[in-house]
Amino acid sequence: MKKIILIGSTGSIGTQALEVVRKHSDKLKVVGLAARKISEKLRDQIREFQPECVGLLYKEDFETKPEKTFYGFDGILEMVRQTEADLVLLAWVGKDSIYIAKSALDSNKDLAFATKEILVYGGNLIVNYAKKVGRKILPVDSEHNAIFQLLENEDISFVDSIYLTASGGPFYNKHFIKSPSVDEVLSHPTWKMGPKVTVDSANLMNKGFEVIEASFLFGFDPSKIKVLINRTSLVHSLISFLDGSVRILYYKPDMRIPIQHVLSYPERWVAPQKEDFENHFVLEFEKPNNNEFPCLALAYEALEGGSIKTASLAACDEVLVDAFLNKKISFLSIPKMLELILSKSNSGNVTSFEEIDLIYNETVARSLELLEAYKI
Amino acid sequence: MKKIILIGSTGSIGTQALEVVRKHSDKLKVVGLAARKISEKLRDQIREFQPECVGLLYKEDFETKPEKTFYGFDGILEMVRQTEADLVLLAWVGKDSIYIAKSALDSNKDLAFATKEILVYGGNLIVNYAKKVGRKILPVDSEHNAIFQLLENEDISFVDSIYLTASGGPFYNKHFIKSPSVDEVLSHPTWKMGPKVTVDSANLMNKGFEVIEASFLFGFDPSKIKVLINRTSLVHSLISFLDGSVRILYYKPDMRIPIQHVLSYPERWVAPQKEDFENHFVLEFEKPNNNEFPCLALAYEALEGGSIKTASLAACDEVLVDAFLNKKISFLSIPKMLELILSKSNSGNVTSFEEIDLIYNETVARSLELLEAYKI
Repeated sequence: MKKIILIGSTGSIGTQALEVVRKHSDKLKVVGLAARKISEKLRDQIREFQPECVGLLYKEDFETKPEKTFYGFDGILEMVRQTEADLVLLAWVGKDSIYIAKSALDSNKDLAFATKEILVYGGNLIVNYAKKVGRKILPVDSEHNAIFQLLENEDISFVDSIYLTASGGPFYNKHFIKSPSVDEVLSHPTWKMGPKVTVDSANLMNKGFEVIEASFLFGFDPSKIKVLINRTSLVHSLISFLDGSVRILYYKPDMRIPIQHVLSYPERWVAPQKEDFENHFVLEFEKPNNNEFPCLALAYEALEGGSIKTASLAACDEVLVDAFLNKKISFLSIPKMLELILSKSNSGNVTSFEEIDLIYNETVARSLELLEAYKI
Repeated sequence: MKKIILIGSTGSIGTQALEVVRKHSDKLKVVGLAARKISEKLRDQIREFQPECVGLLYKEDFETKPEKTFYGFDGILEMVRQTEADLVLLAWVGKDSIYIAKSALDSNKDLAFATKEILVYGGNLIVNYAKKVGRKILPVDSEHNAIFQLLENEDISFVDSIYLTASGGPFYNKHFIKSPSVDEVLSHPTWKMGPKVTVDSANLMNKGFEVIEASFLFGFDPSKIKVLINRTSLVHSLISFLDGSVRILYYKPDMRIPIQHVLSYPERWVAPQKEDFENHFVLEFEKPNNNEFPCLALAYEALEGGSIKTASLAACDEVLVDAFLNKKISFLSIPKMLELILSKSNSGNVTSFEEIDLIYNETVARSLELLEAYKI
């Protein structure tokens, strides 16, 4: 029986992870759950999965309380450290997740995560830390999970390039006459996601962050990481070898597949939903036009500069997307303002967990100043 | 320096293998060459690659003779046994190749082969023999090479199915009013091959043989081996895992890629021809209609019956294709006559190398009788 701590149990990834646990309850046991606040959903999860402990960001009393309850961010860190488990699945949004990741590794647990901030803000800090303590890191994000699967047991020196696929978002191959509205931006063709990541998907900033993640996670030079458009989101990544052969990883766009992969790893269990190939299916790939997607080019530029720059890019994007969602700036202003902030940020790599907050706070302040200036 | 013996050096696979050797002459050394008869091409090969020995099926004197020359089929077997080498690459047509394969394994060499008869006639004899003596078998055929690559380092118990791709040949999705002519049959859309295999490709008998090969080579049950049409021959095979993820192996249809793979294995060397992805490419897959391709169904039927039946199928097909090429029977008669012969052949597995000749001779005799009867 594999014991799991699930941090962020009421979000999309958390909920689907619990579906996987439900299906494979003979092999998986949830020992800890954490969420921001108590909700009907969390109460149901506690009733059904009977975890030993629950972590809550905001203190609140509730009747379904398990044996142990931990409050506040430090409480969640403590819960991760104290509770005996094999794997921590981190489906928690935000750069502070890196501290939860560290707690998991510190206390001898493997780490699966769907939180891009850990790599975009922290660079290779967590990857190096996992190596140091000898624990595994398993990526949940479909592209990185696919690359992880394709690279497993391969000699990295024979790999020529890795390719992340992108759906291209709602504006692929559309040339704007005017900037699209918030509603237009929020209609993604394939995946249902929160507003921040949907905006980031529409301008391929999200794909840019994934390029950054892939570089830090797998130790590949930016020049070896490429993006290919696959409009149907059936292919999650490709790797090419220097001898000319290319491997493609395909599955139905269903996040339960990569979630189950990290939960079952190194085994493989029966699919969440058995699906045979259709009688006829088509996989189409296209190289994206960098001019059309300046955010993608900015991600490469930041990556070349090191994790201080990638953290700045992410922090600035957080401010700008919020401003766009609140109708303070247009969609097409995002890359322009990102470029301005990025050009002023330092190069080099983040060397400590504490440094992340400094970079974040400084970049947010500068981005807000820029927004102010823009308003005038 | 890896030492190679190349059996069948003047054919298509042999010639391309020598191109790979030429490109990687710092890592590969040809120590032995064999061909049916002396030719200008063989003379050139001897001059360029300076092998220690040459094997010739037909005795003939020639001026470019290396240190040692072996004559006749037994001579070739002796050459393989005596000559020190790491790998024997077998690109020799016909069921007798199985004896060359055995000689290679007997004398402590790994075996790479492009000869389907070894498995279609011999079932799992050679695979089991290689296991017994602890040597590797590396398939050159693009589909089997691709499956070999995809299965490597994988736990077979997690594999749901393996998929061989087929171009579908010149008659895919064409419904015949009258049987196509020899010329029509010999125009294959993707690969340039000899007449026998081109005919077998047109009715998917060749794909049926490949299903048989895959079953014996990788130890998969026939129900787990499937065929998918990929008209562009860019995808060579797929494997699906029980957790829903599918791996696809893609490369340009260039036989030097799998040939180089077996010669470089377990390393990977720079591609014969460096090719980046195109800006836009499409992979299309379709399940073949068994009614349209009765030869494919016959292959599965034979496989269910064991290697005695697969050997009978192959022997009968040899006679029938020859009859078709000599305009004695129509293209559409091939599956009908195959079915007749197959229904009368024994079930069970071939248990000795000697048995292969018995089955072959008996089936050829019965097939010729059937042809005679048909003529009247």
